[in-house]
Amino acid sequence: MAGASLTHLDESGTARMVDVSDKEATERTATAEGYVRMRPETLTLIVKGDASKGDVLGVARIAGIMAAKRTHELIPLCHPLALSKVSVDLEPLADQNAVRVEATAKVTGRTGVEMEALTAVSVACLTVYDMVKAVDRGIEITGIRLTAKAGGRSGDWRSGD
Amino acid sequence: MAGASLTHLDESGTARMVDVSDKEATERTATAEGYVRMRPETLTLIVKGDASKGDVLGVARIAGIMAAKRTHELIPLCHPLALSKVSVDLEPLADQNAVRVEATAKVTGRTGVEMEALTAVSVACLTVYDMVKAVDRGIEITGIRLTAKAGGRSGDWRSGD
Amino acid sequence: MAGASLTHLDESGTARMVDVSDKEATERTATAEGYVRMRPETLTLIVKGDASKGDVLGVARIAGIMAAKRTHELIPLCHPLALSKVSVDLEPLADQNAVRVEATAKVTGRTGVEMEALTAVSVACLTVYDMVKAVDRGIEITGIRLTAKAGGRSGDWRSGD
Amino acid sequence: MAGASLTHLDESGTARMVDVSDKEATERTATAEGYVRMRPETLTLIVKGDASKGDVLGVARIAGIMAAKRTHELIPLCHPLALSKVSVDLEPLADQNAVRVEATAKVTGRTGVEMEALTAVSVACLTVYDMVKAVDRGIEITGIRLTAKAGGRSGDWRSGD
Amino acid sequence: MAGASLTHLDESGTARMVDVSDKEATERTATAEGYVRMRPETLTLIVKGDASKGDVLGVARIAGIMAAKRTHELIPLCHPLALSKVSVDLEPLADQNAVRVEATAKVTGRTGVEMEALTAVSVACLTVYDMVKAVDRGIEITGIRLTAKAGGRSGDWRSGD
Amino acid sequence: MAGASLTHLDESGTARMVDVSDKEATERTATAEGYVRMRPETLTLIVKGDASKGDVLGVARIAGIMAAKRTHELIPLCHPLALSKVSVDLEPLADQNAVRVEATAKVTGRTGVEMEALTAVSVACLTVYDMVKAVDRGIEITGIRLTAKAGGRSGDWRSGD
Repeated sequence: MAGASLTHLDESGTARMVDVSDKEATERTATAEGYVRMRPETLTLIVKGDASKGDVLGVARIAGIMAAKRTHELIPLCHPLALSKVSVDLEPLADQNAVRVEATAKVTGRTGVEMEALTAVSVACLTVYDMVKAVDRGIEITGIRLTAKAGGRSGDWRSGD
Repeated sequence: MAGASLTHLDESGTARMVDVSDKEATERTATAEGYVRMRPETLTLIVKGDASKGDVLGVARIAGIMAAKRTHELIPLCHPLALSKVSVDLEPLADQNAVRVEATAKVTGRTGVEMEALTAVSVACLTVYDMVKAVDRGIEITGIRLTAKAGGRSGDWRSGD
Repeated sequence: MAGASLTHLDESGTARMVDVSDKEATERTATAEGYVRMRPETLTLIVKGDASKGDVLGVARIAGIMAAKRTHELIPLCHPLALSKVSVDLEPLADQNAVRVEATAKVTGRTGVEMEALTAVSVACLTVYDMVKAVDRGIEITGIRLTAKAGGRSGDWRSGD
Repeated sequence: MAGASLTHLDESGTARMVDVSDKEATERTATAEGYVRMRPETLTLIVKGDASKGDVLGVARIAGIMAAKRTHELIPLCHPLALSKVSVDLEPLADQNAVRVEATAKVTGRTGVEMEALTAVSVACLTVYDMVKAVDRGIEITGIRLTAKAGGRSGDWRSGD
Repeated sequence: MAGASLTHLDESGTARMVDVSDKEATERTATAEGYVRMRPETLTLIVKGDASKGDVLGVARIAGIMAAKRTHELIPLCHPLALSKVSVDLEPLADQNAVRVEATAKVTGRTGVEMEALTAVSVACLTVYDMVKAVDRGIEITGIRLTAKAGGRSGDWRSGD
Repeated sequence: MAGASLTHLDESGTARMVDVSDKEATERTATAEGYVRMRPETLTLIVKGDASKGDVLGVARIAGIMAAKRTHELIPLCHPLALSKVSVDLEPLADQNAVRVEATAKVTGRTGVEMEALTAVSVACLTVYDMVKAVDRGIEITGIRLTAKAGGRSGDWRSGD
């Protein structure tokens, strides 16, 4: 990384939106994950009963999908993208007192979709938090990271590679 | 928490926006924090040079403030609020290879501002991520949690209490 | 209605946002309804299986709640409001080959919330439409109207009064 | 429709945004209509005087066009689209005590624009409602449906076919 | 102005959203103006014919009103406000080869509405520009300034005072 | 310009979004500028101290970039565009008691990006205004105009040509 520099800053250190017009429009995907950690009793409230389980996790899934589409409104230097797919999955992990969130975004475009997947994960986590915060003040959102990426100049990548 | 239930679900387990019309309009504040963990070289790129330091962290601060104002658009069951203040601070922690983000939101209203503070932190973290992701794929956003809360029926609270 | 005129047009017939600063900030609610009519087989697809029923109607409920909060962004002359509650209910009506949508909005403010309730109903109906349109091109959204209104200068009102 | 299933639900009945990356980017159009029914005196207020007529219907036309561009923000599973055209027309129908709204959306893209046309119609209808609701509480928005569709895998279609 | 400092920067020069929670919620108004200067032939195209005149100026008026409601989304350190009124007027000035735009915003709140009035003017000017740019590349938007302000701690003020 | 007509109005003078589906998707850029004029003491406050200078102008730069991405939400008849680049530069001009703002937008698309560049300039100017208005009521935003344009059917153009 000798000589590495931040692509979102120009020579004078000023923030900029990277010019992607010379990149090829190819199919790109990105997958990210995150965790909402809570007390065991709180997790029980989420998973007990089919209907309510459906609802907490279902509401968070929709919030995550909708947020992915607004990534460029939230992250100042992100490009607007015509996403071809967003999926968000939430899974209660009883042994970890956590809900795991995974999101995948896909586009045929000139720039990657990591931020879209990460934004979907973040907002889905926040939505779970919002729905259970009244019974648990110690909730923590953690471990938000990219797990896989495909397409684009830098090729395929999977966390652990 | 015996008999506890989720306020965002009604008796049949259906998601709902809690009715806050009977709550008093009082001054409420909330503070949240979060961390963006990265490689030491990446952190060095952020902090080296006054101008660029100002820029990465400055852009993230603005993104966090703006996101707080849009919390109710992102989190499905959050109420729209006339926020009276939002502040976001970012601090590079060389010994932890991390940037720490702290946000405070304030309102005179009928409902708390935890989600506004947490949304500001999340989006500021995502913005830091976005600006350095080209040089570091292993970045992780972690430790997003409420640290303090004041006002409202449940009174003052500080993490660790 | 002799001499009646449109409050959203000034003397010269120009559109305007009505000045509500002299109105009292009181509690106001409004309830609206609407119907999504479809083929019986389409309705069966929506209601069969607990999970999927939860999903089509659950997604539409969230879409309706979120849309209510953005009414003033969509309807040019609507005032921004700090809504204290929004609820949206969807009920499949097998005998009418329809899904009935009902939404209630509440505010402590200077202007009514009819448009918020009606916008919630409209967007929930559109969301149901979106999720089943691939199997049924003849769907119709119909009967969107106000059913009740309380608070404000004009007092309580119920459809049929 | 034997074996038909909802494309917006996956095998487990969970809501998802359909992956359109394998579809071809072709020119697609959709036209939808809807009606705002009101008392004859209310319709008279809308149409009397050129200026005011221009205004009620003109404001609704703009609201419909702008709403079409935000369809993907409102309808959770809709894809963001680079619309190449939106038009909205409003026509007072004295013999039906109604305003008829028609909207057409067009895109060169991977998915249809039915929801964009229907959203334009819905929001234009709501805007007419908003501007006349002070003089007429019995207004009804009705008959919102797709009337024509062209392009895409399923070919051209016209209501009545 | 000896010792004056910028309220939107804290002691360390960092941007912040000013805390307005200690200010009183009083009625505040602000009026701003701006000009779109163009070639005489372009202005003639705008004003000729009642219908089209209504349309260029009418579309710009609606755009200005809608933009005022979104000021806090556009201007990073502006507070979200429950505006009680927004009005936008556009007047062709043949002798100045210009369209004059004037906007007034009103709120009962803790902070002034100058930015809302100025944003309405700016977006109305941009909308006029957009609609005539195909026939005139030399258009200039100019003279955007506050003309009057009432309410709040600093009292009433009028440009020229 | 004999026989010229406004492309955003149809034959009957009604506002419309121009159909661009027949235009070629080519690379297009546009550059615009604008000025925020203020008292010399106010300009001094902006430029004194590296940190604060960075902040006022840095916040305005981000606001301008983010606004460019939302142009189609603000200007009723603008098309949504997948911008490939936006840059905003702000320069204090001591001899003119002004901050000069310049913005460039770029797209590979079917329509030009003049409005995106002009919207970025306008919102950056408004943001500077917002941050200094507490110390100077006489600020004026002026001289917002297109300075260059490339690509598209009408070819390259530079102000002064």
